[in-house]
Amino acid sequence: MSEELRTNEAAETLDGWYCLHDFRSIDWSAWKTLSSDERQEAIHEFHGLLQKWTAAEKAEKGSHALYTIIGQKADFMFMILRPTMEELNEIETEFNKTKLAEFTIPSYSYVSVVELSNYIPSGDGGDPYQNPQVRARLYPILPKAKHVCFYPMDKRRQGNDNWYMLSMDERRNLMRSHGMIGRKYAGKVKQIITGSVGFDDYEWGVTLFADDVLQFKKLVYEMRFDEVSARYGEFGSFFVGNLLEPNKVAAFLQV
Amino acid sequence: MSEELRTNEAAETLDGWYCLHDFRSIDWSAWKTLSSDERQEAIHEFHGLLQKWTAAEKAEKGSHALYTIIGQKADFMFMILRPTMEELNEIETEFNKTKLAEFTIPSYSYVSVVELSNYIPSGDGGDPYQNPQVRARLYPILPKAKHVCFYPMDKRRQGNDNWYMLSMDERRNLMRSHGMIGRKYAGKVKQIITGSVGFDDYEWGVTLFADDVLQFKKLVYEMRFDEVSARYGEFGSFFVGNLLEPNKVAAFLQV
Amino acid sequence: MSEELRTNEAAETLDGWYCLHDFRSIDWSAWKTLSSDERQEAIHEFHGLLQKWTAAEKAEKGSHALYTIIGQKADFMFMILRPTMEELNEIETEFNKTKLAEFTIPSYSYVSVVELSNYIPSGDGGDPYQNPQVRARLYPILPKAKHVCFYPMDKRRQGNDNWYMLSMDERRNLMRSHGMIGRKYAGKVKQIITGSVGFDDYEWGVTLFADDVLQFKKLVYEMRFDEVSARYGEFGSFFVGNLLEPNKVAAFLQV
Amino acid sequence: MSEELRTNEAAETLDGWYCLHDFRSIDWSAWKTLSSDERQEAIHEFHGLLQKWTAAEKAEKGSHALYTIIGQKADFMFMILRPTMEELNEIETEFNKTKLAEFTIPSYSYVSVVELSNYIPSGDGGDPYQNPQVRARLYPILPKAKHVCFYPMDKRRQGNDNWYMLSMDERRNLMRSHGMIGRKYAGKVKQIITGSVGFDDYEWGVTLFADDVLQFKKLVYEMRFDEVSARYGEFGSFFVGNLLEPNKVAAFLQV
Amino acid sequence: MSEELRTNEAAETLDGWYCLHDFRSIDWSAWKTLSSDERQEAIHEFHGLLQKWTAAEKAEKGSHALYTIIGQKADFMFMILRPTMEELNEIETEFNKTKLAEFTIPSYSYVSVVELSNYIPSGDGGDPYQNPQVRARLYPILPKAKHVCFYPMDKRRQGNDNWYMLSMDERRNLMRSHGMIGRKYAGKVKQIITGSVGFDDYEWGVTLFADDVLQFKKLVYEMRFDEVSARYGEFGSFFVGNLLEPNKVAAFLQV
Repeated sequence: MSEELRTNEAAETLDGWYCLHDFRSIDWSAWKTLSSDERQEAIHEFHGLLQKWTAAEKAEKGSHALYTIIGQKADFMFMILRPTMEELNEIETEFNKTKLAEFTIPSYSYVSVVELSNYIPSGDGGDPYQNPQVRARLYPILPKAKHVCFYPMDKRRQGNDNWYMLSMDERRNLMRSHGMIGRKYAGKVKQIITGSVGFDDYEWGVTLFADDVLQFKKLVYEMRFDEVSARYGEFGSFFVGNLLEPNKVAAFLQV
Repeated sequence: MSEELRTNEAAETLDGWYCLHDFRSIDWSAWKTLSSDERQEAIHEFHGLLQKWTAAEKAEKGSHALYTIIGQKADFMFMILRPTMEELNEIETEFNKTKLAEFTIPSYSYVSVVELSNYIPSGDGGDPYQNPQVRARLYPILPKAKHVCFYPMDKRRQGNDNWYMLSMDERRNLMRSHGMIGRKYAGKVKQIITGSVGFDDYEWGVTLFADDVLQFKKLVYEMRFDEVSARYGEFGSFFVGNLLEPNKVAAFLQV
Repeated sequence: MSEELRTNEAAETLDGWYCLHDFRSIDWSAWKTLSSDERQEAIHEFHGLLQKWTAAEKAEKGSHALYTIIGQKADFMFMILRPTMEELNEIETEFNKTKLAEFTIPSYSYVSVVELSNYIPSGDGGDPYQNPQVRARLYPILPKAKHVCFYPMDKRRQGNDNWYMLSMDERRNLMRSHGMIGRKYAGKVKQIITGSVGFDDYEWGVTLFADDVLQFKKLVYEMRFDEVSARYGEFGSFFVGNLLEPNKVAAFLQV
Repeated sequence: MSEELRTNEAAETLDGWYCLHDFRSIDWSAWKTLSSDERQEAIHEFHGLLQKWTAAEKAEKGSHALYTIIGQKADFMFMILRPTMEELNEIETEFNKTKLAEFTIPSYSYVSVVELSNYIPSGDGGDPYQNPQVRARLYPILPKAKHVCFYPMDKRRQGNDNWYMLSMDERRNLMRSHGMIGRKYAGKVKQIITGSVGFDDYEWGVTLFADDVLQFKKLVYEMRFDEVSARYGEFGSFFVGNLLEPNKVAAFLQV
Repeated sequence: MSEELRTNEAAETLDGWYCLHDFRSIDWSAWKTLSSDERQEAIHEFHGLLQKWTAAEKAEKGSHALYTIIGQKADFMFMILRPTMEELNEIETEFNKTKLAEFTIPSYSYVSVVELSNYIPSGDGGDPYQNPQVRARLYPILPKAKHVCFYPMDKRRQGNDNWYMLSMDERRNLMRSHGMIGRKYAGKVKQIITGSVGFDDYEWGVTLFADDVLQFKKLVYEMRFDEVSARYGEFGSFFVGNLLEPNKVAAFLQV
């Protein structure tokens, strides 16, 4: 056991919009007890929220996504990006106070912030927060892709497989290889990395968007053979969903 | 710690129909509060779903299975195969909106896709998706066997037992031995492997069908002594069930 | 990492009756809302089940046990042995449809099959399934001992402590020592081992019966110092209970 | 892997009264729906139980303790010592049938037996069960200390840190050092060790009593640096509480 | 395995006010069923509690904080500091008996005591409990910062990464480096360490306060590369929240 101090160079991050993933199950039995009019009213109220979110997106003050989820983990999820934690909290509370929310059961949520790391150098040495390409990644408008995949993850700290005890160079080399896999899926899968150290139970959230749902499996599986994931990845639950366009909400909730 | 890049050759997969396993417990107390007519109506509605599923199966646009489950983990399960995630989602939501579903409690589900790996070479070098034998395995009609066994699993990534750090050759050799055990059970146990990386919490789902339920135990136990399972297998919950033929549904639900 | 195939000789098993352990908590508040007559009717109906189970036992078509459980994990449990999984399922469903079941909350269950392994040689080389001593162990009539202890367990597969990577000889030697401890408790503790690989979440269920409850602690603790348990045992939850004789059921449920 | 048999000398124990720890949360909302008279009646009935427990204690046929619990894990707990498991079960069931119990939610319980181990020699070679000092420890009257602390624990069996693979001498040496820490707290903390191998999910329950709650932290923290805990201790949940004297029950339940 | 006794020098602590973190979710559906007057009354009653807490704070007999929580883990939390465990328990019970509490669901809590360790020497050799700077840290008035972050943590005891087997010097050196990171955030993040060994499931609670929520992420992430966290830190759930000022309570609860 060495007594000398050993503090690794920490990765630095650029941080963009704050992010809330909110997964809900529907209490269909209770929902059916409403009259048709009451259900319409609840759907109408929810459309009002969606319109406010869309307005914020058009004003480039945030973005959002709405997907149904396959399997029993949830029935739908919304993902919200905003400049402050206060706004995330307000949106969450506003939804909780709606009529529709009375018929949903919270099933999972995730609090994080859009993040770029310094493992991959981002450029010309100027202020990255003024770089349009960087800004586009820190403050992204979420794509209306047909499918979403979300999972939280940690870098492992276990026996000989301890990411945080590697040197900056080792980590950078490993991440470069990892990034090269990601780049093979450019145009097929859009990836948003959000950091959650200090905010939620894992260290990162990964949100993937694709029109071909099979690309999620191909990408995540190929990466698993890469040393970064093989030795250092710890994964939470995986959620997969289908785009729920606003004009499909009423049909989805029709009983 | 080597600084050179180390990215393993990833296994490639052939992917067929998407798959939902949906396990439900019955709220018998609430079910009894219905009148006999209401129960008949709910059963009738469920038979309507079963008929649609059967029609899809006849049209080779999917397949399904329905089993009761032994023990408290669930009372019954249905397993659905379809060409798209959207169809799985629609079937799940359609079931959730039925009268019967009001008297069920979701207990477990699994989202995956029928998968063949390239560890075992599949042939002549042509397009495997055009090979009839391959197609029969990617788009299988599920057998009406007396019993089902389902469990999800991972390949381990732990200290010296890290599947994803093995070379392609090592993995292929291990899988060959594993496959040889499986082949001993040909005719006794039908096995469907579904991949779930990026879709659900484990990497694979294993669904076994047999007329002699004891063969599940013999197969899984024999495989556990094989290095692939002994060193590299991590298993989730096991579910075992009995075939629920459509003409037995009413008796099963009779109170 | 050796590339040669390494498949261990698997232990072979003799398998007898299928087994369901079913643990229930009582919803005493709801139970009290019944009229005295309704409660009597529910108890009477449950006695009808017990009589059917007793008749099956007399006909040597199965066996059962009924115990109250100490602590909050459950209020009572029944353990059922039957020749087929279908019968287990029918008994479970029949109980679920009773009036009494409306006032119970499922708390744990276990699905398995009575098992003898080939680590301890069983004899003369003839068909063991025709050997009366073997048959008595595969198709046991459960004793009416004052106390029961149940726990599920696995053999560990972890780093250097991987049971399934040991040779048949190593495993046989270890099991022989283990069995010698068990034999010291002959006459004090009756042990039923049920295999659950492919049926439930652990690999075995262990059910112990004794008139002196302290013998459970002495037996399990002494075994824990034996290498089989010390290095290779992984244990689930432990349940301990007192015999609930049929003529005590009414008093137990009296409110 | 040695093929010789290796069975460690197991620690032997002296065993006294059986022990139930029963933790409950109060459903305050439901409790408020009662009329004041109904609440008084429920409290009166509970006092009846306490008086029976006190009578048993005076007759030296058992002992008990009643504490409120801080934090959301529970609102109160009772700890019961009795000569048999049947009596524990009767007391638990009798409480479950009371009016007050209708307004409590079971939150945790623990089943064990007061235990002394042979790591620390207990004396003169006579029958320890006739030794008054030993009897006072096996059949203890629980102190009315201001505070209680309860936690269950295991001895670790993990890789190189496997308590059950140590020799009797190694274990005895380690326990002697451990005991010396405990002795420093004599007069400040009263410790009751109960064994639960074969009875509940951990191997021991530890119940500490003190008038100065900070002594719990000091004792447990100091022990954690001792090799027995540092390398071999695995701890469950910790509960800390304040004495609830019978004459304070009504005020505690006043709404 | 050495047979000599090995007991490490335990860290000593200074201990201040006892601490309860209490996290609650709101049952918005039930809350809406109240009349506006009933809701006002419940809010008014809660303001009464807040005023008592504020009076205690002004009298330097404790302190408290009130924050909304982002995501589904909770809707709000209060953190209470008091000189005794009895007072924490009374405050908790008093809240539980309020009207507002009927519409909250307990989601997490943590019991601990403000703690300073002797890894960092605190001074002049006099009685530290009389040192004003020490007192200010043991009996802190919680800041009204815009954001809070709470997480519980353990020091790891796993294989070669066993904090409690390190010598006092090794631990002191590691903690010094750790403290230097903390000091970089002086003025940005206020940190309160509370010890919970013997009181709750982890060994410490960490509560951070900051006006810039991003500083939580930066601080915790930077520390994770430090050997104390990288090798020896085990973290529980993370909660992040926004200040809920008393005059915003009514708006927060407005439906």
